Amino acid sequence: MKMLDFFLGRRLANREQQEQKIGWFEGVPAMGLDGLGSSSYGPEAALTVLVPLGAASIAWIGWVIAPIILLLAILYLSYRQTIVAYPNNGGAYTVAKENLGSTAALLAAAALMIDYVLNVAVGISAGVGALTSSVPALQPWTLTLCLLVLAVVALANLRGTREAGWLFALPTYLFLASFLGLTGWGLLRLLTGRADPVLSPPTLHQAVAGASLWLLLRAFAAGCTAMTGVEAVSNGVGAFREPVVGHAHRTLTVICAALGLLLAGIAALAHGYHLGAMDQTQPGYQSVLSQLAGAVAGRGAVYYVSMASVLAVLCLSANTSFVGFPRLCRLVALDDYLPRAFAVADRRLVFSAGVIFLTVTGGGLLILFGGITDRLIPLFAVGAFLTFTMSQAGMVAHWRREGRRHWHRLAINAVGAATTIVALVIIVAAKFVDGAWIVIFAIPATMSLLFATHRYYARLNRRLETTAPFRIQETQPPTVLVAYEARNRMTDRALRFAMTLSPDVIAVHLVRLGGPEQKEDIAATKAAFDRDICCPMRETGVTPPRLVAVPAPYREIQGPILDFVDKIDAETPGRSVAILIPELVLRHWWERLLHSRRAARLRTALLAHAGPRLMVVSSPWRD
Amino acid sequence: MKMLDFFLGRRLANREQQEQKIGWFEGVPAMGLDGLGSSSYGPEAALTVLVPLGAASIAWIGWVIAPIILLLAILYLSYRQTIVAYPNNGGAYTVAKENLGSTAALLAAAALMIDYVLNVAVGISAGVGALTSSVPALQPWTLTLCLLVLAVVALANLRGTREAGWLFALPTYLFLASFLGLTGWGLLRLLTGRADPVLSPPTLHQAVAGASLWLLLRAFAAGCTAMTGVEAVSNGVGAFREPVVGHAHRTLTVICAALGLLLAGIAALAHGYHLGAMDQTQPGYQSVLSQLAGAVAGRGAVYYVSMASVLAVLCLSANTSFVGFPRLCRLVALDDYLPRAFAVADRRLVFSAGVIFLTVTGGGLLILFGGITDRLIPLFAVGAFLTFTMSQAGMVAHWRREGRRHWHRLAINAVGAATTIVALVIIVAAKFVDGAWIVIFAIPATMSLLFATHRYYARLNRRLETTAPFRIQETQPPTVLVAYEARNRMTDRALRFAMTLSPDVIAVHLVRLGGPEQKEDIAATKAAFDRDICCPMRETGVTPPRLVAVPAPYREIQGPILDFVDKIDAETPGRSVAILIPELVLRHWWERLLHSRRAARLRTALLAHAGPRLMVVSSPWRD
Repeated sequence: MKMLDFFLGRRLANREQQEQKIGWFEGVPAMGLDGLGSSSYGPEAALTVLVPLGAASIAWIGWVIAPIILLLAILYLSYRQTIVAYPNNGGAYTVAKENLGSTAALLAAAALMIDYVLNVAVGISAGVGALTSSVPALQPWTLTLCLLVLAVVALANLRGTREAGWLFALPTYLFLASFLGLTGWGLLRLLTGRADPVLSPPTLHQAVAGASLWLLLRAFAAGCTAMTGVEAVSNGVGAFREPVVGHAHRTLTVICAALGLLLAGIAALAHGYHLGAMDQTQPGYQSVLSQLAGAVAGRGAVYYVSMASVLAVLCLSANTSFVGFPRLCRLVALDDYLPRAFAVADRRLVFSAGVIFLTVTGGGLLILFGGITDRLIPLFAVGAFLTFTMSQAGMVAHWRREGRRHWHRLAINAVGAATTIVALVIIVAAKFVDGAWIVIFAIPATMSLLFATHRYYARLNRRLETTAPFRIQETQPPTVLVAYEARNRMTDRALRFAMTLSPDVIAVHLVRLGGPEQKEDIAATKAAFDRDICCPMRETGVTPPRLVAVPAPYREIQGPILDFVDKIDAETPGRSVAILIPELVLRHWWERLLHSRRAARLRTALLAHAGPRLMVVSSPWRD
Repeated sequence: MKMLDFFLGRRLANREQQEQKIGWFEGVPAMGLDGLGSSSYGPEAALTVLVPLGAASIAWIGWVIAPIILLLAILYLSYRQTIVAYPNNGGAYTVAKENLGSTAALLAAAALMIDYVLNVAVGISAGVGALTSSVPALQPWTLTLCLLVLAVVALANLRGTREAGWLFALPTYLFLASFLGLTGWGLLRLLTGRADPVLSPPTLHQAVAGASLWLLLRAFAAGCTAMTGVEAVSNGVGAFREPVVGHAHRTLTVICAALGLLLAGIAALAHGYHLGAMDQTQPGYQSVLSQLAGAVAGRGAVYYVSMASVLAVLCLSANTSFVGFPRLCRLVALDDYLPRAFAVADRRLVFSAGVIFLTVTGGGLLILFGGITDRLIPLFAVGAFLTFTMSQAGMVAHWRREGRRHWHRLAINAVGAATTIVALVIIVAAKFVDGAWIVIFAIPATMSLLFATHRYYARLNRRLETTAPFRIQETQPPTVLVAYEARNRMTDRALRFAMTLSPDVIAVHLVRLGGPEQKEDIAATKAAFDRDICCPMRETGVTPPRLVAVPAPYREIQGPILDFVDKIDAETPGRSVAILIPELVLRHWWERLLHSRRAARLRTALLAHAGPRLMVVSSPWRD
């Protein structure tokens, strides 16, 4: 337990729940890493789609980013309303459940779960990918580095949100400060005419195609990955301290404003400084953010600090999933759609089943895809936008029920629902062949698992439920069987216990020998039992227990004991049967090697047998 | 269990023990593979040491093999006597224990155990080595092949000796027939002068040294590896059916005679056909047996069949260990020097703990040494000859006790003891630097583990032992605590059970919430308990149980329950406390994922707590 304390921190009491809650300043790193980090790959993904347009892509990027920023603004307004309406936990699951019913809620939950798992894999692999492209020597260790980052993030989250939030604050605010600063400085230089595009557009080939609506839509779909993670705040409202709504709003505002500014700034600077997407598989590749930082600030200290913050933010953007996923799973588990372990707070008040599940599945995805981001990206954003739509649609239903005076709120959420569903259709259409089909398949599969879990618990509850008044049919003491090999202190105590439970005690002696030795063994044991146990008892006027020899010709004791239990059970209808098993308590792990643990195995077999009137009594013994 | 039946065969009854016993025909493959297989590397190892003598080595080999054959004859006579004197199990451990005391016995046991483990690794790696030198394409798979052979041999032995014996009979008798035939035919051709040394001695270089006594002694020490495995019969006497001594004698005779004839034949034919050791690391390497078969029979069908039988015998010579090791461990375990699991016969009447231990340690050695024989050979033979010596010395003490009329038997064993100890000293001296030191270190290490185990059991037995007459201090029923969360069929039944055990029943409700919710939860539970349980009971005139709420502020239930148990225990001195835990019986493995198994964990914690008056009662429930 000392080791657990070291790694996970001391056990926290329920009353410390309050102290574990976070404010907006910790909320931005805890819930915004995903949203902010995606600004580094969203615009780049859009520009990559536009590459066939050649230099014209720079002219078109504004037309792609503008609707994304508009969509972000709509989402911002919508989610502000969600937080007010659901100040406890306004995730898509809760909103859809309360307004659209459980099937819609599970659709949202499945989509969100898949997106969270993908975000872990994408965030970490993108971060490690950026690192290895800066330091090519690390290339062979890509997967190892991914799993290492995953382990650090998982451990930090097992310690609890607050400490994890602080751990992630530095790179987040460093990233915000440097890139907002760079963007502002760059725009200032552009406006004062002092911008010199030091990096002439390096990979803008001749145009090989004209701008088509389909191409622009595909660029839009790719750019939409920049918006993943915006829902994290509404999902994690429960983590904020009082005033909850204020902290949540401020967190959402910081995240959305920063993201919007970054997107707009990148679009504007792409124009002025002629930034463009480069091919990641070619040597000399530079990401768009790297081009931007280099063009504005030159390759000095500012450039390197900024790039380090990008790496850190990307690597740690997985953290958003670690905050949201366990909370979502807890809500779903409380409704009996997931195993109950997901709803149990651990020693650090963390829902560790969710953290561990996310670590294992995220790690599995990383291993499966070798830590390569490119293969994961097309799966991304489908889940996020499906979640947006479900959440907004739920809010529309919410405001309809609330009555007429909320028509303007209803309108905002309706616009949100309509725009996100359009974006979702575009994303699915544009990415279907590249991998979105996997998600389209995984969502109903996940839903059917959730439904199956719910059916299991429902059936179990029906079996357990009782409304009939409690009745005692029988208060006669049970027949008590005592597992007996040879007399020692342990069996002595077991017999004494048995006599306190019932006057009807039978010592069961299992004979595992065969042939003439069997008879000898039985006779010797009976004689000793009579001499050492029965005689002293008769002298004090107590009815002594009987000794019954049960042969075990196949050397396994469970079968004969179970048969004997059934026989006793049939002989004494209505009375219960208790089997008392003396058990030696081991004090060191290595003692397990020295004992065959027959008592424990017999107990397990009897528990599995579970006759309707069977009790299994263990009397642990140590000197 | 169906799968176990398929792999291991059906469960056997004690009375089938007799049917599982083997006769001499099965005994030779079961116990002789090691001894016979070593004829393929023993003479070769001796010839290798003689290589510096050049062509003169052929002249000297007879002087090395002759004492080995003499030693074999002495051992044969000695072990015949051991079998007669100890027809139950005449292994070195038993003989040393009965005549020289337990320290000598454990010395023999430790030496023998180490030798058995080494034999598994050496036999399999030598066989696979021979195979890969015939089919060089298999070279990269050496270790995999080794582990595969090990798995097959282990599985066959888990099914039981008789079937394993038959499985190994074919290659053994094929090996005997072909090499005894080849030797005889070769000698006949030599005597009739029709021998033509087709293979002129290919690697007999110029002599680089003269014959020295030290060189001859080293060659003798190397050749002695041919004798390992001869003790297997005396160790495995218990496996023979009636007449035990007859079958054992015949088995020993066949093995020793065949081994002696092979050694003599190889020495004689080396002379006539100019056979010599070749360097195994050079291309074109041929083993001595391969040279012999080729020279006598030519490279025809006979050659290939013979060589295939060598491969099989070597690979399977590990089987001797699998017959002897578990039986030895059983004897040692029956004397409390090894964990008791080694003395338990499994479903197939096999002492499977020994088989599994041997498989794991043998596999570990193979992995550690990469399946390379050369590195293992120097460790070999030390254990075997130490065992021989201990066994013979024990027999000398045995005949001394038996009186004067056994003086000729005493003489035979005394000669055996004297010669084997001389051989042992030579072997240790000649191989010390090459690896024998590891064994010299491992034997006392093993012994100290055996002694530690014995001390553990002795201490445990002292703790458990009681000779005082049985007394009942207290027959008052215990206080029964029932773990209670909310009312359902399972807790209803648990309460009914509790009422049959004692009139003093307390339902313990664990509250894992905090703050105001805690009070609400307690009030609601108490009200429901009073309404649904207590009222109906009062109406029927029975004293109802109490409900006590125990807060669990740190969400773990074991601590508060244990405190409560201690409190109750202190309040009712002298009376025992029984905790009744209702437990749901799971019917499928996957149900474990859906339950937090709180009941099982609470049970484990209570068992580990093991208060002096504590009983843990499980009431398994299924509908």
